[in-house]
Amino acid sequence: MRIALGLEYDGTAFCGWQTQPGGCGVQDHLQAALARFTAASVEVTAAGRTDAGVHASAQVVHFDTEARREAFAWVRGTNAHLDASARVLWSAEVAPEFHARYSALSRTYRYLLLDDGVAPAILRGRVGWYHRPLELGPMREALALVAGEHDFSAFRDAQCQAKSPIRNLGEARVERVGALLVFTFRANAFLHHMVRNLVGSLVYVGAGRQPGAWLGEVLASRDRRLAAPTFMPDGLYLASVEYDPALRLPAFRRHPLLEPPSP
Amino acid sequence: MRIALGLEYDGTAFCGWQTQPGGCGVQDHLQAALARFTAASVEVTAAGRTDAGVHASAQVVHFDTEARREAFAWVRGTNAHLDASARVLWSAEVAPEFHARYSALSRTYRYLLLDDGVAPAILRGRVGWYHRPLELGPMREALALVAGEHDFSAFRDAQCQAKSPIRNLGEARVERVGALLVFTFRANAFLHHMVRNLVGSLVYVGAGRQPGAWLGEVLASRDRRLAAPTFMPDGLYLASVEYDPALRLPAFRRHPLLEPPSP
Repeated sequence: MRIALGLEYDGTAFCGWQTQPGGCGVQDHLQAALARFTAASVEVTAAGRTDAGVHASAQVVHFDTEARREAFAWVRGTNAHLDASARVLWSAEVAPEFHARYSALSRTYRYLLLDDGVAPAILRGRVGWYHRPLELGPMREALALVAGEHDFSAFRDAQCQAKSPIRNLGEARVERVGALLVFTFRANAFLHHMVRNLVGSLVYVGAGRQPGAWLGEVLASRDRRLAAPTFMPDGLYLASVEYDPALRLPAFRRHPLLEPPSP
Repeated sequence: MRIALGLEYDGTAFCGWQTQPGGCGVQDHLQAALARFTAASVEVTAAGRTDAGVHASAQVVHFDTEARREAFAWVRGTNAHLDASARVLWSAEVAPEFHARYSALSRTYRYLLLDDGVAPAILRGRVGWYHRPLELGPMREALALVAGEHDFSAFRDAQCQAKSPIRNLGEARVERVGALLVFTFRANAFLHHMVRNLVGSLVYVGAGRQPGAWLGEVLASRDRRLAAPTFMPDGLYLASVEYDPALRLPAFRRHPLLEPPSP
């Protein structure tokens, strides 16, 4: 039987999603909890891998198991063995063809950024920070230039293992929501560090170090050296994974920091 | 010269506001940072003492010093020596009569509560949690019964050192803001554990374990044993300290989790 789980986790408590020799990945913790709950070894596959320090309010995983449990028993039973910095929010039995990664139509990442003279204390590690106010207008101009299907080599990490640098950025926007800037990026898939590299360059634009049009030039160059450094992971959230609605996967609860900002 | 500072801190990183032999209080950390910055010993006085695990988005303190610094130098210089879980947000030179605690007209605390089957992961320690949905209506009925001037002995900790149990609760309300319940309490002053004791009993009411009228009975009894247990500190924030506007103290920045909810 194939089971899908919806997951929330605080990225500061783990060394990223992926399994690590030291066992510090979210995947390691989740697999260990599922193994204890089912008394069998379990391998999980996630919709999107997140780096160290990157959070997920809506990660989706799947795994195969011989164990039979009620839907909420998977939630409660797994959480009973899981570090409190990660929580299973829902479970669903899915068809054997369902694949958390390959069935996903797109992923949405949000980046929360505080632009203020003093760093955040209460939300340290949970929002990114830039020490000066950023201008929305030029950042929006820049975002319009990277939206759509492009070769994103300029925003791709040297470690990226994707076969193609072409991605379709269907949504790329920024809003001011209270004290924070909220960047939203939706794409079929993302290159390694793509969002943090885009945010780093957008901060250059918002701070007036570069004009909005510069982001289009960087994109066209396909040269990683022209873009700004990778921005800190602190404010980055895997905020949604989109699947065919016919699959009827359970909805995630609303997240206090990640309410969809009004357009 | 007397200086006032505005402070934000994450209560999970300290053992409460007040100075402790081990030096783990926010007060200890702040005094040590100020001592290093001014090269002299400094004693600070806060508007409100917060318990271990309780946060402040808007704590106000004052201290006397011979040191002369520009306003933003106090912010930057103190933060340079301070644990990153606390940040000085502003400073102001104040009259020698100003007293962070005694000049305060009132304090506002907010309690953020997630009422959901699964505990929070990303905001663990930063929001309180109850495992079932709570009803707003009965809690509002109960809040109306405790608003105003009363003897709050029923919601007072045995350790409380206040001379009188009479407090004037000028504001006592609850709103649903996205996924969270946001309780707001404003009073001239608070008894020890008063907000957490009120929240504990309000959760009983919201969960249907007691009717709204029960809170009025508990209040009238002045008997701590009749109220619910003290609720967890996780969701509690010192959110504002009100002073005479003629003092022209700097404003705090808006806090992402504590935006004033719309009425």
